[in-house]
Amino acid sequence: MLNVEQMKWWGWGGENIEFNMDDKPELWPHIKDVVGIEDEVKFTPPFKFENIELPSQTLNDKFINHVKSFIDPERFKSDKRERVIHSYGKSFRDLWRIRNGIVNASPDYVIYPLSEQEISTIIKAALDYDVVLIPFGAGSNIAGCLEANNGSGRMIVSLDMKLMDKVISVDKQSNTARIQAGALGPLMEKQLNSYGFTLGHFPDSFEYSTIGGWIATRSAGMQSDKYGKIEDMVLSLRMVTPNGTIVTRTVPKSSNGIDVNHICIGSEGTLGVITEAVMRVHKLPQYRVPYGYLFPDFESGVNAVYECVEKYCAPVVTRLNDPDKTALSFAYRSKSSPVKSLLGKVVKSYLKNIKKFDFDKACLLLTVFEGDKENFSDMKRKVNKIYKKQGAFNLGTEPGKAFERGKYDFPYLRDYVMDRNIMADVSETSTVWSNLLPLYYSTIASIDKAMKQTVKKGFLGCHISHTYHTGASLYFTFGCQQIPGYELEQYLLIKKSAEDAFIKGGATLSHHHAVGFEHMPWIKDDISETGIKAVRGLKYSLDPKNIMNPDKIIPPIEKSFNWGLQKEDIEKLKALLAAGRRI
Amino acid sequence: MLNVEQMKWWGWGGENIEFNMDDKPELWPHIKDVVGIEDEVKFTPPFKFENIELPSQTLNDKFINHVKSFIDPERFKSDKRERVIHSYGKSFRDLWRIRNGIVNASPDYVIYPLSEQEISTIIKAALDYDVVLIPFGAGSNIAGCLEANNGSGRMIVSLDMKLMDKVISVDKQSNTARIQAGALGPLMEKQLNSYGFTLGHFPDSFEYSTIGGWIATRSAGMQSDKYGKIEDMVLSLRMVTPNGTIVTRTVPKSSNGIDVNHICIGSEGTLGVITEAVMRVHKLPQYRVPYGYLFPDFESGVNAVYECVEKYCAPVVTRLNDPDKTALSFAYRSKSSPVKSLLGKVVKSYLKNIKKFDFDKACLLLTVFEGDKENFSDMKRKVNKIYKKQGAFNLGTEPGKAFERGKYDFPYLRDYVMDRNIMADVSETSTVWSNLLPLYYSTIASIDKAMKQTVKKGFLGCHISHTYHTGASLYFTFGCQQIPGYELEQYLLIKKSAEDAFIKGGATLSHHHAVGFEHMPWIKDDISETGIKAVRGLKYSLDPKNIMNPDKIIPPIEKSFNWGLQKEDIEKLKALLAAGRRI
Repeated sequence: MLNVEQMKWWGWGGENIEFNMDDKPELWPHIKDVVGIEDEVKFTPPFKFENIELPSQTLNDKFINHVKSFIDPERFKSDKRERVIHSYGKSFRDLWRIRNGIVNASPDYVIYPLSEQEISTIIKAALDYDVVLIPFGAGSNIAGCLEANNGSGRMIVSLDMKLMDKVISVDKQSNTARIQAGALGPLMEKQLNSYGFTLGHFPDSFEYSTIGGWIATRSAGMQSDKYGKIEDMVLSLRMVTPNGTIVTRTVPKSSNGIDVNHICIGSEGTLGVITEAVMRVHKLPQYRVPYGYLFPDFESGVNAVYECVEKYCAPVVTRLNDPDKTALSFAYRSKSSPVKSLLGKVVKSYLKNIKKFDFDKACLLLTVFEGDKENFSDMKRKVNKIYKKQGAFNLGTEPGKAFERGKYDFPYLRDYVMDRNIMADVSETSTVWSNLLPLYYSTIASIDKAMKQTVKKGFLGCHISHTYHTGASLYFTFGCQQIPGYELEQYLLIKKSAEDAFIKGGATLSHHHAVGFEHMPWIKDDISETGIKAVRGLKYSLDPKNIMNPDKIIPPIEKSFNWGLQKEDIEKLKALLAAGRRI
Repeated sequence: MLNVEQMKWWGWGGENIEFNMDDKPELWPHIKDVVGIEDEVKFTPPFKFENIELPSQTLNDKFINHVKSFIDPERFKSDKRERVIHSYGKSFRDLWRIRNGIVNASPDYVIYPLSEQEISTIIKAALDYDVVLIPFGAGSNIAGCLEANNGSGRMIVSLDMKLMDKVISVDKQSNTARIQAGALGPLMEKQLNSYGFTLGHFPDSFEYSTIGGWIATRSAGMQSDKYGKIEDMVLSLRMVTPNGTIVTRTVPKSSNGIDVNHICIGSEGTLGVITEAVMRVHKLPQYRVPYGYLFPDFESGVNAVYECVEKYCAPVVTRLNDPDKTALSFAYRSKSSPVKSLLGKVVKSYLKNIKKFDFDKACLLLTVFEGDKENFSDMKRKVNKIYKKQGAFNLGTEPGKAFERGKYDFPYLRDYVMDRNIMADVSETSTVWSNLLPLYYSTIASIDKAMKQTVKKGFLGCHISHTYHTGASLYFTFGCQQIPGYELEQYLLIKKSAEDAFIKGGATLSHHHAVGFEHMPWIKDDISETGIKAVRGLKYSLDPKNIMNPDKIIPPIEKSFNWGLQKEDIEKLKALLAAGRRI
């Protein structure tokens, strides 16, 4: 048996892991309240696996026979489970379709390569026999990067990288590690930790994403304020393309023309397969303690975060929730957690009466301080001083610890609500400081308006989780009841309202989730038409036969911009909504 | 009259600025000693301007007439002085040729555009009438980026950007500034300073280089340890190409596919003309003080620099000289400078007898601390502790101040020695910490060997000026007497030994000087053959008719790798050397 862990075909995370709602007595009532479920819950469980019908396989015998000559059958598979698992990532759109048994396109085969040599041979064969390849890490992408939507009649093969999962070597003196692309977050960190190091990259998808996937999508992790985004960590990499293998040199910085690392970073599988990279790593910090703070409102929280950046003293993690996200966080607390008692009567009374907190406006900020003893204490002292000035109340370490325990749980909660006819998704961007609050308000207004066209009540919150000298990211979460029969059309309406607000507001289509297929409608506005020509030039030069993950990032000419949804269905929904139909 | 300052046609800096050797009584004797001039100095002054013969102009009447319709004659010039000034950058090879009246290729005209709109129109006309364009900032490039070596019979036009020199706006809250590409360092800083900001980018060429040039060549400045390399500072930019204008969005970070900013950064004029950029800027620090330290040897200095990086407390500037560079620095001190007395008899005796310093091995480290009061003092205290552990002797602020005063003077010294039959040049790279000393020794050995094939004695020193979490740059300076009649062949031999050592030693062809024409022989080893295909793909997609600065970065097929030197001449020199002829 192949020793790889795959996520559930219908949802997030390992087969046996479920969201534990039982120990969070306030959460489901809170969600029901914010999305306006008054009566019975409508259950919408996933389709039965055996009832899913896959499209018939396109089989390229020459390719198959060639691959069989050097890949054993255990690593070259086409059973239904493998095909289903590799059909999609984990965007709401992906999950809704698979949960409803809709698979219009699917890889015909899955290969688990063991080495770069094998990958080169596979790509050569794919080129010779005109087969499409889609690199696959852990399948957690939420921008449609994995969608097998355009083989153009060709056989489609998913290249699952998870067997290439080793930290090959660590150069302790140089703070660098050479890591294979298929290493999942936890396994990679475990290997690095054994050397005394960390990559310092902890995206929300950490447990089910790979370093190759992070590089291919320009990922950002929770500790980016200190350690940077993934693109800041790459010293060198290797990427096999249909036109040869790109190999760059392991140096901290260079002036060797256009930066070839940056041609591979963010290429989302469209140019080739990243097989390994030498990454900047960090010695594990001596001290590391999370803290929680309550700010009177979002604006004071933003002011505090901004002043930390201005004073060059940003903690390793800063996560500021807006009021609605704060309320969700508090509802999230478990029965056994001391957080429950934290805002007990005495504290609440103190905050309300003495500090004049309006709890409808209060915002939770989670932070982590780390470093050696001196840096740790210095940072904590400086930051506390700044926070205090903005009226923050220090909640101590418990909220931070609770957050650290549950920080990877959110996607499981999405599955839970999707079982109950609720859509939930995220859209995120970044902008400069002077535009942060204006963009926050305009995006909230835009999503709220779109959502309220379809439902009476919905959840809409935001947090800031990555800060820079010049600006920060804004990460919006929304959720609402679904209109039966028009779930995807309804979702497109809401998702579009977020992305439109970003682009209209001068921001970018995504800060760290990639373009893929789902963000493609906004790429021209983001990188300009000539930028698209440049990216297309790269594509043609390295993959002239378009066998690598076709139709991602840059729009194929004449393609629909509605993610394949039928214009008539979208119009029907709009007519319904215009006629006053809402949930 | 056009209000632009150009450098001397035959050397560095403004027409009226000369290197002041008179107030540095120890310098010329020191140089004569290290390059082994025992007898009379051989004077080699530049050619007379009036004797320089330019290649005849290639005139494309349709283009000329079209340009004349919207650019006034004052900004569209073809007099001899303009053509000579725009023929070359300031590499040793450039200067040697122009000083000897050798101009095999020259722009036929020079245009000084005033706006992006004009540039678009010029590029369109160049495309329509098949004219070559070479963007020109201040002309300080030393990698042959400006060489007009391949018009292929077409008219060649230099686009001098210096009239587009404004800081258009500063977003004080966001720490960003929108700056036109042609702004020279000092003028740009002056404008930013008036808002209370600095870019924090001070390359050795600062006085005669532009922000467009920095971006196009991936420049690094003296304060990069805090402020980063130029590519770290770009939020967005605009670049006019023959296939349209690339426009990116002003956001701190994005995940919008392949990073289009990085397609423009480092493109060295081969894809288009960068017209402006929004840059990350910083509020001027409250405190800023330079210090000097003397370390017992290079290794202890490296250890100290490394430990600062490891402890996340690198000063804004760290410049560690090796012993030979240290000796040159001390010889550099002026009559009036208190540095002179610094290592007076008492201190020398103390260092030698009590601290057991061997002055032949001692190394000067120059550093700058800055920040608000608290950050400034913290940093100084932490760094001093680390330096002390490595046996450093604190020389106080004077050497630092002396360095700051003279930090842009080195290229003037090169002109001085070139007047005296001495070649002087630099080659720099970067590598990871574990390879830093091995690469230092192997490169010193390689340059020394090559140089000693041609001269009995020469100068060879190195300094470290840019440090990173994973490594640092190594900047080598060499100088020696020239073999009359074979100066360029001799230079190629020595320069090649440096670059060969970098590539053989796992490093990069340049850390911040670009590829241009002179580093092209090493680009394939640096970015791999497939990397070259990618860059070529970009070139063809944005500039299909190859009108933008042709034959830079990536080798044109079938081109000589000897910078246009004749193989026979190189062989003749080798034969001479093999027969024992040395200076």
